[in-house]
Amino acid sequence: MNAMPQWAFVNNEFRPFSEAALPIEDRGTQFGDGVYEVARVYRGTMFGLEDHVQRMLQGAAVIEIEHKWTVDSLRTIFKELIARNDQQDGIVYWQLTRGTAPRNHVFPHGVEANLMAYTRDYPNLSASWENGIKVIVTKDIRWLMCHVKSVNLLPNVLAKDAAARQGAGEALFEREGFGVIEGGSSNVFMIKDGVLKTPPLSHHILPGITRSYVLQLAAAAGIPAEEAYFGRQELVAADEVFITSTGIEVMPVVEVAEAVIGNGAPGPLTRTLQQAYEGKISETTGGR
Amino acid sequence: MNAMPQWAFVNNEFRPFSEAALPIEDRGTQFGDGVYEVARVYRGTMFGLEDHVQRMLQGAAVIEIEHKWTVDSLRTIFKELIARNDQQDGIVYWQLTRGTAPRNHVFPHGVEANLMAYTRDYPNLSASWENGIKVIVTKDIRWLMCHVKSVNLLPNVLAKDAAARQGAGEALFEREGFGVIEGGSSNVFMIKDGVLKTPPLSHHILPGITRSYVLQLAAAAGIPAEEAYFGRQELVAADEVFITSTGIEVMPVVEVAEAVIGNGAPGPLTRTLQQAYEGKISETTGGR
Repeated sequence: MNAMPQWAFVNNEFRPFSEAALPIEDRGTQFGDGVYEVARVYRGTMFGLEDHVQRMLQGAAVIEIEHKWTVDSLRTIFKELIARNDQQDGIVYWQLTRGTAPRNHVFPHGVEANLMAYTRDYPNLSASWENGIKVIVTKDIRWLMCHVKSVNLLPNVLAKDAAARQGAGEALFEREGFGVIEGGSSNVFMIKDGVLKTPPLSHHILPGITRSYVLQLAAAAGIPAEEAYFGRQELVAADEVFITSTGIEVMPVVEVAEAVIGNGAPGPLTRTLQQAYEGKISETTGGR
Repeated sequence: MNAMPQWAFVNNEFRPFSEAALPIEDRGTQFGDGVYEVARVYRGTMFGLEDHVQRMLQGAAVIEIEHKWTVDSLRTIFKELIARNDQQDGIVYWQLTRGTAPRNHVFPHGVEANLMAYTRDYPNLSASWENGIKVIVTKDIRWLMCHVKSVNLLPNVLAKDAAARQGAGEALFEREGFGVIEGGSSNVFMIKDGVLKTPPLSHHILPGITRSYVLQLAAAAGIPAEEAYFGRQELVAADEVFITSTGIEVMPVVEVAEAVIGNGAPGPLTRTLQQAYEGKISETTGGR
């Protein structure tokens, strides 16, 4: 786990990972002025690559980062990176920032965006997928553009570290007037009386790619679903709860803020969706 | 202006600026998981150094970054940096992040914090100090821990770029329920009927060092001052408005959101405070 990869890609060239670095005036470093993505690799094949790149391109457009990258040019780089690192199973991380320029909040012009990418191993979460995890609930103190996957992640870092200290695997954000809307690095779903519910897309949450896959898989499985807000009380009273992300996939939640969900074990619809997600992975990449 | 400096300091050593870089898994780069400071250098002497370092130490404590740095050890490094770069006039920028570790929101342990620092020239703002600037007012969409000077600055970048596009020098943030509370990289003051007013310290604004100096200078000059909130209407109806920061010092504002302030020229109390600030610079560093 987490052996250092051999190669990274930084600004148009492959570099040994151990030497891969960004200038100290990179705008990602100084301002969080950039967007990023994490995609899974199964059997050496990227999963959901096009969806991840499209989201990054949209985020870069929202914050008006000028760059030259496309789905095709990024795919080519990631393929070579995966091959060079022999990354059969793991993740590709990439980040696009507004380039390097003398520090000034105002956008620099005529500066090339900085792209960096690398692969990493990813932990085996079998025990958690099997038994479920506990999560805490914390006040959402983040900014109002959480639909952009930017590297301004300090509130997420603080929330997830607080969760870890309490033996929890995730912190769910509760935003005044909206309810429990998403996790520090995941989307949240609840099931009550056979109906799946997840908060609607807005500027307050990330348009999760796994979230969208799960909604598609639920529809295909005939599970009724609605995109609607729910509060902490409604969440705690759910029959089943799970969270989703590229890394944790469909992760059962068996305890929310010290309240046991259902009978304390992952529920049947969560299991159905876990299996459906596994099926999607197999179809796309040949399986783990 | 903005010639590249010769030297930077990165993780315990002086490095040529052109090669100074941070690993791609630096937590500042990936999470905005760090704090920074900018201090002015006049005649080769740092201005307000101890106050800046104390604020950084407090910020690092709030977000629990473990590190070894002190006022004295940083002063020694900055002095050498200024000497190596022969930086008579300009700024020192420094940034402290939670180190380099395989990407995981949860704090890594046993990892050394990354410190980087460098000097830069700073523009001559004489014309703006003389004539004043215009500013826009924009909705505050930032997170709720703006008292920590972290590198999560994307909302500030977007606001200040929007201001620049409108020919304005700053964007003031208006937060629902509080009023106009500070600028994208400055604190805001208004004067009405001889009374100076600036929003009180809270989690919504940075505890500006120039802000605190100006309050001290106002007291010394017998200008009554109160720390209180004010809305956009009250601000626009002010006799005088100015903003403060380490770089722009005491900057007169003559137009707010297209409304002319006073008679459109910097007012007398703003001039008094500009002169008092100039006096403080001279006392401390011998003058520009």
